[in-house]
Amino acid sequence: MAGGLATAAIAAPVAAQTVPFHGAHQAGITTPMQDQLYFASFDLVATKREDVVALLKSWTDASARLTAGQPVQAGDSGEADGLPPSGLTLTFGFGPELFVQNGQDRYGLAAKRPAALVDLPRYPGDQLVPGISGGALCVQACANDAQVAFHAVRQLARLGYGAVQLKWVQSGFATARQSPGTPRNLMGFKDGTMNPAGAAMDKAVWVTQPGWMQGGSYMVARRIRIALEHWDRMQVAFQEKTFGREKASGAPLGGRHEFDTPDFNATDANGDYVIPETAHARLAAAANNDGAQILRRSYSYNDGANFTAERWPPWHQGIEYDAGLFFQAYQQDPRTGFMPIFDKLSKMDALNQFTTHVSSAVFACPPGVRPGGYIGRELFEAA
Amino acid sequence: MAGGLATAAIAAPVAAQTVPFHGAHQAGITTPMQDQLYFASFDLVATKREDVVALLKSWTDASARLTAGQPVQAGDSGEADGLPPSGLTLTFGFGPELFVQNGQDRYGLAAKRPAALVDLPRYPGDQLVPGISGGALCVQACANDAQVAFHAVRQLARLGYGAVQLKWVQSGFATARQSPGTPRNLMGFKDGTMNPAGAAMDKAVWVTQPGWMQGGSYMVARRIRIALEHWDRMQVAFQEKTFGREKASGAPLGGRHEFDTPDFNATDANGDYVIPETAHARLAAAANNDGAQILRRSYSYNDGANFTAERWPPWHQGIEYDAGLFFQAYQQDPRTGFMPIFDKLSKMDALNQFTTHVSSAVFACPPGVRPGGYIGRELFEAA
Repeated sequence: MAGGLATAAIAAPVAAQTVPFHGAHQAGITTPMQDQLYFASFDLVATKREDVVALLKSWTDASARLTAGQPVQAGDSGEADGLPPSGLTLTFGFGPELFVQNGQDRYGLAAKRPAALVDLPRYPGDQLVPGISGGALCVQACANDAQVAFHAVRQLARLGYGAVQLKWVQSGFATARQSPGTPRNLMGFKDGTMNPAGAAMDKAVWVTQPGWMQGGSYMVARRIRIALEHWDRMQVAFQEKTFGREKASGAPLGGRHEFDTPDFNATDANGDYVIPETAHARLAAAANNDGAQILRRSYSYNDGANFTAERWPPWHQGIEYDAGLFFQAYQQDPRTGFMPIFDKLSKMDALNQFTTHVSSAVFACPPGVRPGGYIGRELFEAA
Repeated sequence: MAGGLATAAIAAPVAAQTVPFHGAHQAGITTPMQDQLYFASFDLVATKREDVVALLKSWTDASARLTAGQPVQAGDSGEADGLPPSGLTLTFGFGPELFVQNGQDRYGLAAKRPAALVDLPRYPGDQLVPGISGGALCVQACANDAQVAFHAVRQLARLGYGAVQLKWVQSGFATARQSPGTPRNLMGFKDGTMNPAGAAMDKAVWVTQPGWMQGGSYMVARRIRIALEHWDRMQVAFQEKTFGREKASGAPLGGRHEFDTPDFNATDANGDYVIPETAHARLAAAANNDGAQILRRSYSYNDGANFTAERWPPWHQGIEYDAGLFFQAYQQDPRTGFMPIFDKLSKMDALNQFTTHVSSAVFACPPGVRPGGYIGRELFEAA
């Protein structure tokens, strides 16, 4: 079975195409991936609840215009004038700090913080940088043009002047439109083969319980730096054992085609598992996690280069790419999605030799906006 | 008259298209701009001249393959497998340190350093960071897919292991393919209107004097951080006086259409110049620089966000985009191209209130590679 987003992306939009902003669910979650990501996390500096509501109303109006390829009404900065909508989606999330910050219930929302909006534990290997983690509000802008994605976030930030302050941002890129099938990450492997599709995707992603989050989803975002130079010196056979999949075809080891069901019990002539016990694909599979599934919607990132010392012979030191994966996963509850899966991965995944998680955030992404509504109305107007 | 690159870009290639690697000139200079840039500057650590030649031969072979959409032969990292060539161009340059480094003529090339490969003076306002300036070799990778551009540089860096070390990198984006006409920069203005086209472009760009640089060009690269938040709070009328052009149409002030010839003598009812004395378009125009022309081929960049304090009321402090323009200009001689123009701009341009040059480099880009040749053969094999 093909991964949900990858398959959809084969028929991905041309530059002029638009993705509807209004709907039961927010766009940018189960809609096809675009080429470019610009993600921003904000601190809220507004002191009053009504100022937060005014901000979200303003962002709603602006988002409806921006996703249709129109400038915002007051003082658009202009760099997207004449550019097509480029499949722009804007997806909003509420972080824990919207509800309680430093023990303060700033906006009278503390009682409405969902239990699923968890504070993630510290995982083995975490090297989280506070300045690029967390946040009170987030906007995920995806488009097939980097300038369109950045332009959108820039207008929202400007409209939020006095109510929000930029905390951290992340740009990313993917190749979903360029080639049929599952896109490859910077390690050269197909990424997203195991993604749920169709009804299984909907089940994994959308909150169904009554309450203000019904129709919404929870996003876990983790910036994962990958030691590419180190990885590139490994033999392909070693890389394949690390992933548990063939590099070229994406097939599970022992299988022939990308979407073959992995045989986790198969052993080789030595009695060793064909898909090693520490292989990423084994540890991450829903079949080995009581059916836990998440929808990964990740972008590669490359933020320049800086000093790195390799952790493996020949212990090369020098300037290396600050590059990797901006992992984003959507699920109806992180406690039954990301958390059990990553608890296992963080301890045992052979990939951990090459990866370092440097940022982490969890956001509650409310349901979609109905015409006349605004982002998060269900939260702010619930009884 | 339309700018050279912008006009050509209207008919820019689809993803599958290839730009020939071999030719009299290197591609990526006067060929149409692509959407994505990945630029890398390297230090040379090779101690022998023949190792530098071997590197350049290896890069030549790899470049011919990569620009045709093929993997490199030994151990490609694989993330571009299945992706189309995406219009990839790879453009190489030689920095001053190839010829002399710390007073040492490492490769017997000191006598061949062209006079046109200048050390730029310090300009007013320069805030250059040495770690992201200069270099002995550079590669400019441009493609319509960010992953394709990064993949190419990554393979070249790997092939150069032991001979070069990454010094600094810069990614960028443009919108040349998305919309007809001159693309807009992050200030929202059309950028490149004054670029020479056709025969004037060839005249401005290509070295014609006999010698190893004949058929080559000189690249000046400057990373220019733009205070976007500051800029965004200016009235459009003020922005237009700063540029000397209308924001929406790109027309010179007092004109009606983008490509109208600016009237630098026109005055308003108060006797003030319609195009102010400090307007960017006035100071940069060839007509006001003894005909000096350069071919700008710049990409916007956005490298995340970090702390900034505004230099203007209301002196807002906070996290701001580390964004702006990665200015690249090609010319047959910087001493008659970039230098006289920027000497004036750096002192008087009203834009300087919003811009800070943080990196600078000059590279001699040798002529194109003929089949069977290699990058820089004219330099290394000249009598």
